[in-house]
Amino acid sequence: MQPRGRFITLEGSEGVGKSTNIEAVAQWLSSRGVEVVRTREPGGTQRAEAIRELLLTPDSDETLCVDAELLLIFAARAQHVAQKILPALQRGAWVLCDRFTDATFAYQGGGRGISSERIAELERFVLGDFQPDLTLLLDMPVAAAQQRLQGRLAASGGERDRFERERGAFFEAVRQAYLARAEAAPGRFAVIDAAAPLATVQARLADCLDQRVGPWL
Amino acid sequence: MQPRGRFITLEGSEGVGKSTNIEAVAQWLSSRGVEVVRTREPGGTQRAEAIRELLLTPDSDETLCVDAELLLIFAARAQHVAQKILPALQRGAWVLCDRFTDATFAYQGGGRGISSERIAELERFVLGDFQPDLTLLLDMPVAAAQQRLQGRLAASGGERDRFERERGAFFEAVRQAYLARAEAAPGRFAVIDAAAPLATVQARLADCLDQRVGPWL
Repeated sequence: MQPRGRFITLEGSEGVGKSTNIEAVAQWLSSRGVEVVRTREPGGTQRAEAIRELLLTPDSDETLCVDAELLLIFAARAQHVAQKILPALQRGAWVLCDRFTDATFAYQGGGRGISSERIAELERFVLGDFQPDLTLLLDMPVAAAQQRLQGRLAASGGERDRFERERGAFFEAVRQAYLARAEAAPGRFAVIDAAAPLATVQARLADCLDQRVGPWL
Repeated sequence: MQPRGRFITLEGSEGVGKSTNIEAVAQWLSSRGVEVVRTREPGGTQRAEAIRELLLTPDSDETLCVDAELLLIFAARAQHVAQKILPALQRGAWVLCDRFTDATFAYQGGGRGISSERIAELERFVLGDFQPDLTLLLDMPVAAAQQRLQGRLAASGGERDRFERERGAFFEAVRQAYLARAEAAPGRFAVIDAAAPLATVQARLADCLDQRVGPWL
């Protein structure tokens, strides 16, 4: 059976405002009568969240090797898709997910240097040809995003996780990998300039949803 | 650089006496002046053991899907090989490992019904052509092995993990998959009849090591 709901993903690196804007997308959809399931990766189910914990725990004595990181991410994804995303889509709900496979190409590909071919191999293994219907990429310069992240961490008193501890060059590579993914699949991606004030970003997001999602309703 | 030490794995399902016999193999090797690194899968390093915990935790509300299980096992294996097995072999130590990829073909293949092709795909992805030099398969009828397992659990008061909770048909499929692996690769496998009294099994094991490992020393 073909899934009936739509699968929308939000992408972008730390500090671009995904949490705030995913809320706006959810409200836009709900106000049009769509049942929205909000979720995130890595994680989204109890067992996948347990895998997320392993991924985010900073290395102390033992560095997590890049292949193990990649396989853990796809383990969490297999569980998430099977237990939550597909069942929701099949009953007609729309799924709005904070990060998905594009993040793997950006972080483990761009950031860690794993080849796209290698990531695509696991993508086919786990997902076959299952893809998001629409991917909203929130994009802004790395320096500005890092500043926002720092502000958020200072305000919350939270510690940086294993990815947040990476340096500027890592996030620059993540950003460029995201932009390359978007350029290669313009039919699926919409790139939102997220460097503007929040009201402007959300107006852009609403315009984008009117154009791209409106026709599906 | 080609690894210099030898990589020996011990295989067999629950209750066949792996723990006792791996000790005997380690002693046989040590008494011949070989530096032995004993380890196990899934696990063997701090991070891989954390993945093991996820794999063994019984399902409560959420079933771990078979693909997620398979990917977690290979994530743990990637970490274990990179951080512990290869470094040990490269400095000349021998590695003696309680379970390795054959267990994946037996449990996730035979037991869970994942195709061998699918498992072989991940094996190539993670390990390339890295294989044990020798695999000792402890084999005995399932009913007898289950009886031993039950005795051990009763004595220790331990709870059954997610795999130990499986039924007889699962372990029968595991056993048959192991035997099929051994038949397909007689140059790498030695099958030890483990149903006999311990002294007999250990004498068989010593004979086998004399023949198969003796020439490497």
